[in-house]
Amino acid sequence: MNIAVAQSGGPTCAINASLLGVVNEAMRTPEIKEIFGSLNGIEGIVKNNLIDLRAHLDTDDKKALLKQTPATALGSCRYKLPDYDKDSSVYKTITDNFIKNDIKAFFYIGGNDSMDTVAKLSKYMAENGLDIKIIGVPKTIDNDLLITDHTPGFGSAAKFVATVLSEIVRDSAVYDLKSVTIIEIMGRHAGWLTASSCLLHTDGSPAPHLIYLPEAEFSTDKFLSDVAAKLEEYDSVIVAVSEGISLGKAEISKTDSFGHIALSGIGKQLEEVIKNSDIGCKTRSIELNVLQRCCAHIASKTDIDEAVLIGEAAVKAAVLGETGKMMCIKRVSDAPYKTEIFSADAALVANGEKAFPSEWITANKNNVSDLAIPYFMPLIEGECDIKTKNGLPVHLLLK
Amino acid sequence: MNIAVAQSGGPTCAINASLLGVVNEAMRTPEIKEIFGSLNGIEGIVKNNLIDLRAHLDTDDKKALLKQTPATALGSCRYKLPDYDKDSSVYKTITDNFIKNDIKAFFYIGGNDSMDTVAKLSKYMAENGLDIKIIGVPKTIDNDLLITDHTPGFGSAAKFVATVLSEIVRDSAVYDLKSVTIIEIMGRHAGWLTASSCLLHTDGSPAPHLIYLPEAEFSTDKFLSDVAAKLEEYDSVIVAVSEGISLGKAEISKTDSFGHIALSGIGKQLEEVIKNSDIGCKTRSIELNVLQRCCAHIASKTDIDEAVLIGEAAVKAAVLGETGKMMCIKRVSDAPYKTEIFSADAALVANGEKAFPSEWITANKNNVSDLAIPYFMPLIEGECDIKTKNGLPVHLLLK
Repeated sequence: MNIAVAQSGGPTCAINASLLGVVNEAMRTPEIKEIFGSLNGIEGIVKNNLIDLRAHLDTDDKKALLKQTPATALGSCRYKLPDYDKDSSVYKTITDNFIKNDIKAFFYIGGNDSMDTVAKLSKYMAENGLDIKIIGVPKTIDNDLLITDHTPGFGSAAKFVATVLSEIVRDSAVYDLKSVTIIEIMGRHAGWLTASSCLLHTDGSPAPHLIYLPEAEFSTDKFLSDVAAKLEEYDSVIVAVSEGISLGKAEISKTDSFGHIALSGIGKQLEEVIKNSDIGCKTRSIELNVLQRCCAHIASKTDIDEAVLIGEAAVKAAVLGETGKMMCIKRVSDAPYKTEIFSADAALVANGEKAFPSEWITANKNNVSDLAIPYFMPLIEGECDIKTKNGLPVHLLLK
Repeated sequence: MNIAVAQSGGPTCAINASLLGVVNEAMRTPEIKEIFGSLNGIEGIVKNNLIDLRAHLDTDDKKALLKQTPATALGSCRYKLPDYDKDSSVYKTITDNFIKNDIKAFFYIGGNDSMDTVAKLSKYMAENGLDIKIIGVPKTIDNDLLITDHTPGFGSAAKFVATVLSEIVRDSAVYDLKSVTIIEIMGRHAGWLTASSCLLHTDGSPAPHLIYLPEAEFSTDKFLSDVAAKLEEYDSVIVAVSEGISLGKAEISKTDSFGHIALSGIGKQLEEVIKNSDIGCKTRSIELNVLQRCCAHIASKTDIDEAVLIGEAAVKAAVLGETGKMMCIKRVSDAPYKTEIFSADAALVANGEKAFPSEWITANKNNVSDLAIPYFMPLIEGECDIKTKNGLPVHLLLK
């Protein structure tokens, strides 16, 4: 039998580590012959655009480089399969290409859209009597997948966010004046990544003094009074805000009659809200942008190691006959940090979103409770030994 | 005799390493008794706001932590001394506090404004017959100080810029579509830091496909035709642009009749220029922001080591009787990388700016020549061994 693996959705620092896990375990499995990489997600299967991963990863050095390479080495896609009772043509193409290449198991590393693909494809295979296993491997910096304790990719993003925030805290404190620094953090509709900035509190830092998540109500009036109150207590106020928060049109027009800020992200918008208020101190906003998802130079060792393990577990599950599953992480204990990998129906994960728990948001809705710290802390633990050349990290290209 | 040291201007990753160098050498110098840290630059002398650095840095562990702490541990200021023939009152206050504390040498770590202070103060001391040495220690991520080959702080900023650009290159290439990614890089009026992104070329990368510096003429028409040409050849075009480039009002109004982009930085402006053109592909802009100057977690070992050495050399120079000088780096050879430290009149550096050499800009003004690579390459070499706690770098606070 042969297998194929693909990557989908937004990049992370750990998605290639999961790819490596799949390849490692497949290489250890005698019945697996060819290991195909499908280029640009499921589109690579549709177009029969496959590469030979045994050849591309024939040395330990190459494997080590793949593990430290951010973003999807096989490329990605945003393709969503149609329901096959409405349009089955692409399912037929995929099946034909699986059969033509003797692919008996397909591994899809991605987020909730990809789990939708896993659920639909595995159902189609079963209903058509085809013995082709379809297994999902989770990844997303948003950490918003259901069932799994957390998602590979999240820990490295959280480590980057907390690291650069701790540096921005230093940068913001140098002048002898009052200031507000707003940091806009990714995570789409889920507040996990923004909330993880509470890790700075582990070292006794009051920063971030304010943390705003999409899971809590937000108003600019409350925001301004929060900021004013913190400025009474601290010279340099650090605000972490999730990109998933949006100001209503009414809120924007209150502070910006020319519509200048409507095109901006929430960080810039809140900067303008403060500048147009009577707070009157130095204010700036920083958008961490895609660095959060591709910052492999500061990846979390825990995250990268887990990403490899979960890729390996996916192959084991397929060999044992599982299909239509997403591999999940179960947390056994916070300290010492201990986890187990199990599988759950991908259909239960597909298209769902796990919100940040409301019990971990402070009563005044403007920070994260210390109760969340034991959850986040182990996920950013450990540094990877990054190979460099000419002072820069080395990446492995597969396409 | 006692000494005092202060930090000024914008933060860098290396300014505390220079502070450590001053303290290290002072501790090795028997005739130096008290080592004062002046809080918030020269303002700490004016206000007699001094701390005891022997007490704060009494262990090797604390010294190691100071070396890896970004931004100015003693705080900073933007204070510029008036000419003393116009207003000598502050000079009298400074002198009184030097005498009161038996300070016989003052070390000012900063950029060209700080060198102006060094030049003025040393001249005042000489003209008033006071034997108080004033020595400047350079730092700026802009690398725009005259006479010195490069400035401490620049190498670490360049290492961060090149590292994250190499990661953004991966992030930008995942989808099977045409895209333009514009990265806005600091450096004020000088293109050094933006130009250093050419370090990606050392690994055969065509990215950045376009590099725009303030030292070369810029027009949006030329920019659009450059981008269009690169999109013919490459799917994912990476553009590095210096914050020091500005579009004229006429250029902005051509593409943005509502003035939405006038408030933004050049990166966002150029993103809008492309979006409003007929190029019609996915376009985004990324502002690296203050991360460039406080990214101590990825500091260049060469830079940090040199920052310590130049701090040490400053104390040696003062002990030998020098004053009114800035310590400078002379490059002896690129490979093997070899430098020497010497001193030059701070007055020659004060208020001047060293532009990026025009002979290192390509003929078509939209990239950096490979001739610049031997200059930049050694400056980002080596990784620091960063001490962490709970997965985050540990910083030392002095105030």
